[in-house]
Amino acid sequence: MNSFNTKSIALAGLLSFGFAGQQNAVAAETENENASKPNFIVIFADDLGYGDLGIFGHPTIKTPHLDKMAAEGQKWTSFYVAAPVCTPSRAGLLTGRLPIRSGMCSDKRRVLFPDSNGGLPQSEITIAKALKGNGYATAAVGKWHLGHKSPHLPTDHGFDSYYGIPYSNDMDKVEKTDHFTLADNERYQAYNVPLMRDKEIIERPADQRTITKRYTEEAVSKIKSLKDGPFFIYLAHSLPHIPLFRSEEFKDVSLAGFYGDVIEEIDWSVGQILKTLKEEGLDENTLVIFTSDNGPWHTFKTHGGTAGLLRGAKGGTFEGGMREPTVFRWPGKLKKGVVMDMATTMDLLPTFCKLSGTELPDDRVFDGFDISPLMFGTGKSERDLVIYYRGAQVYAIRKGDYKAHFITQNEYGSQTAHPITNPPTEIKNARTVENPPLLYNVNIDPSEKFNIAEEHPEVIAEIRKVLEEHLAGIEPVENQLEK
Amino acid sequence: MNSFNTKSIALAGLLSFGFAGQQNAVAAETENENASKPNFIVIFADDLGYGDLGIFGHPTIKTPHLDKMAAEGQKWTSFYVAAPVCTPSRAGLLTGRLPIRSGMCSDKRRVLFPDSNGGLPQSEITIAKALKGNGYATAAVGKWHLGHKSPHLPTDHGFDSYYGIPYSNDMDKVEKTDHFTLADNERYQAYNVPLMRDKEIIERPADQRTITKRYTEEAVSKIKSLKDGPFFIYLAHSLPHIPLFRSEEFKDVSLAGFYGDVIEEIDWSVGQILKTLKEEGLDENTLVIFTSDNGPWHTFKTHGGTAGLLRGAKGGTFEGGMREPTVFRWPGKLKKGVVMDMATTMDLLPTFCKLSGTELPDDRVFDGFDISPLMFGTGKSERDLVIYYRGAQVYAIRKGDYKAHFITQNEYGSQTAHPITNPPTEIKNARTVENPPLLYNVNIDPSEKFNIAEEHPEVIAEIRKVLEEHLAGIEPVENQLEK
Repeated sequence: MNSFNTKSIALAGLLSFGFAGQQNAVAAETENENASKPNFIVIFADDLGYGDLGIFGHPTIKTPHLDKMAAEGQKWTSFYVAAPVCTPSRAGLLTGRLPIRSGMCSDKRRVLFPDSNGGLPQSEITIAKALKGNGYATAAVGKWHLGHKSPHLPTDHGFDSYYGIPYSNDMDKVEKTDHFTLADNERYQAYNVPLMRDKEIIERPADQRTITKRYTEEAVSKIKSLKDGPFFIYLAHSLPHIPLFRSEEFKDVSLAGFYGDVIEEIDWSVGQILKTLKEEGLDENTLVIFTSDNGPWHTFKTHGGTAGLLRGAKGGTFEGGMREPTVFRWPGKLKKGVVMDMATTMDLLPTFCKLSGTELPDDRVFDGFDISPLMFGTGKSERDLVIYYRGAQVYAIRKGDYKAHFITQNEYGSQTAHPITNPPTEIKNARTVENPPLLYNVNIDPSEKFNIAEEHPEVIAEIRKVLEEHLAGIEPVENQLEK
Repeated sequence: MNSFNTKSIALAGLLSFGFAGQQNAVAAETENENASKPNFIVIFADDLGYGDLGIFGHPTIKTPHLDKMAAEGQKWTSFYVAAPVCTPSRAGLLTGRLPIRSGMCSDKRRVLFPDSNGGLPQSEITIAKALKGNGYATAAVGKWHLGHKSPHLPTDHGFDSYYGIPYSNDMDKVEKTDHFTLADNERYQAYNVPLMRDKEIIERPADQRTITKRYTEEAVSKIKSLKDGPFFIYLAHSLPHIPLFRSEEFKDVSLAGFYGDVIEEIDWSVGQILKTLKEEGLDENTLVIFTSDNGPWHTFKTHGGTAGLLRGAKGGTFEGGMREPTVFRWPGKLKKGVVMDMATTMDLLPTFCKLSGTELPDDRVFDGFDISPLMFGTGKSERDLVIYYRGAQVYAIRKGDYKAHFITQNEYGSQTAHPITNPPTEIKNARTVENPPLLYNVNIDPSEKFNIAEEHPEVIAEIRKVLEEHLAGIEPVENQLEK
């Protein structure tokens, strides 16, 4: 399992044998090696919609820092997550594998809950574990949601430190109150969510009024203390997942109301991270990626976001559930502009390994691909598929321009998703096997309005073959969400 | 009527009296005055949707020139037109007045047709006529659609020259063919639309395959020949109105299909205009504005655009029908960034007059306001209302954050507008008086999903008062579309 971090292991071995004369030389070599390894920061929002940022078309949410980050870097317009809900999406990002392979998705329970005993298995290799083996310092800040009991916490999975809430900010509900009507100081107390440092609970309920600000301070502090690098920081905001909170400074700043305030604070947070990198001279050696875990939660109306022109939302397998507003920045390295090629959060692990010279083990299937050619404008990635799971079932597959829906089902809150009558295709609330599958060209028709199944039976046949091959390659594992 | 161009009139008077000794001094004075007058270029697309540009959130239409134009200038996210269809929208832009005041809208005929005898009355003052009186050279390129018989043509209305098609590119249909299935060289011949220079027809049918390219060449040529300034160029593309066309060079270039190709050629055209301004040293003395005449024509499915997260489309008074993707550029002058304040095409006339020192006559009502404070970041404009006409009736009014719909009716092609079932509000195909009106906070809820009429009767009462005052101020005029 550790074959991917051979260099560091070898160096550690030498050091532990205590060859004092060689120690300086080895240290110098390590320093040189580390200097060529880039830092990685992944900023992961929670339930942010595809249309919620200025550069992704929102008219009234101001995101000057993310807009600037995109102008200085890359805006990715076909960037996907591994699942349309929280726990499996995060498992996919950190392991580079579809959550079905780690038992981190289920048809019975969508995500982990406070009463869950399961979590990300120790047999999984997270980005943090992989990079740590190659000399990286690692830190997790924010929402985890991959198991809150050992050995499932961040520090069990390759992170040197952790500061954040272990599951969603709407869990551990104290009373049956309608959080929309509560004042800020009452609302945060209605959710008995713990704030943890490493494995200790340090505050309960977590004071969510200042949570984005405190995550930001922690991340900034980590950048400063780890600046000699290389480092990997995973900053997973627990907002704009409901219940919404924002600091005093962001109260009523947005034209777009409470939800807008929350996004504008997250945008400020991005600005703080980028400012710190610049101040610390880390700008050109740090790849920063911003994205979100799944689409907007339409159930909560104006407290949820918008998927913009995309159909669907959180929980569903139309594009709005799994395509995310994504920005990459790495001054002097990336080819500036818009990347329209498909990529997913599962591609980050193999890409980071490639960029840092970290070897990947060959004892398991990875679902990610190295996307660095797309970053540098030197070529394509190997990805030509996106597989859309809902729970433990494949609902849809995209291959190139085309996406086939084998099963459809309304996303959460679909009754508030689109306001106009006379839909061309009626999607039922219940799970519906589509035969023939619905087929869309999602490059020409990103809103998935015009079913072209009848015109392209050959495309459906091709994608059905992909489905069958994929399903045949899935090996049963213990389910973690049902434990 | 000419009180607004006193200076030029006075100078012309002196010259015509032949005071040779004063002539040089006057010429020098004119030159100085003219040097301080900015050039204006308005680029007006046809049926472009709010969500059709990269910077407005489209994932697969590449618009690098418009994206850059916005990065160097301003992206306007609440910029409206005067009507949700072609003829009245154009009348509003050029006169700074609601089309109801010039007889340029009707409940019986939406726009002017080849058999129409009417057009923009001579009593109206266009931007061209106003600026021409103050020393500007003026040129119209592209689609006109304000009357194709004298005295309604561009050169009857203050433009020194005209090159373009006088009405929509889908008129004068030769046969009942389905243009979607025709090859390019057959499709353009299916519409016997004339191409005109000034008042002469120079080609019929206009070869629409190269129309965007030829408009661009004409506009570039005008910039070069008028570079001593000041000038006003109105470049009104006849696309992406159906039937779609693009040059050979743009065939199959876009991931987004035929429609994408068309937009990418228009984006190229914008790039050519900006490149020419730079080459001619006119960059810092030229305000360039890009917008569209109304929302996307959903009837034509993948041959129509998308309004992005906005509800509605061409023909309707939900936001998607009348809010347009708008970009301003004026290097060194504009305060760079995103402008979220309301503005409309009717504001261009008073703003251009303000910026050029052109006086406006006081014998008529203007519906536009000077928006230069928003451009320079020095303050607000006086606009706090948008009035949404469909035909000759007010359907809705926006005041500040709130928009009340007094009448609703589905836009053209609404059955293809949104794909999801269970809409919260059912909008009927037939004209429906809403009592109470529907009320939306369009800053918090830009998709107009959540009717808050019950919560805010006082806002409805306030907007109803605005409606009554507005209607009381409308004086009956001869209808031009029904002639």
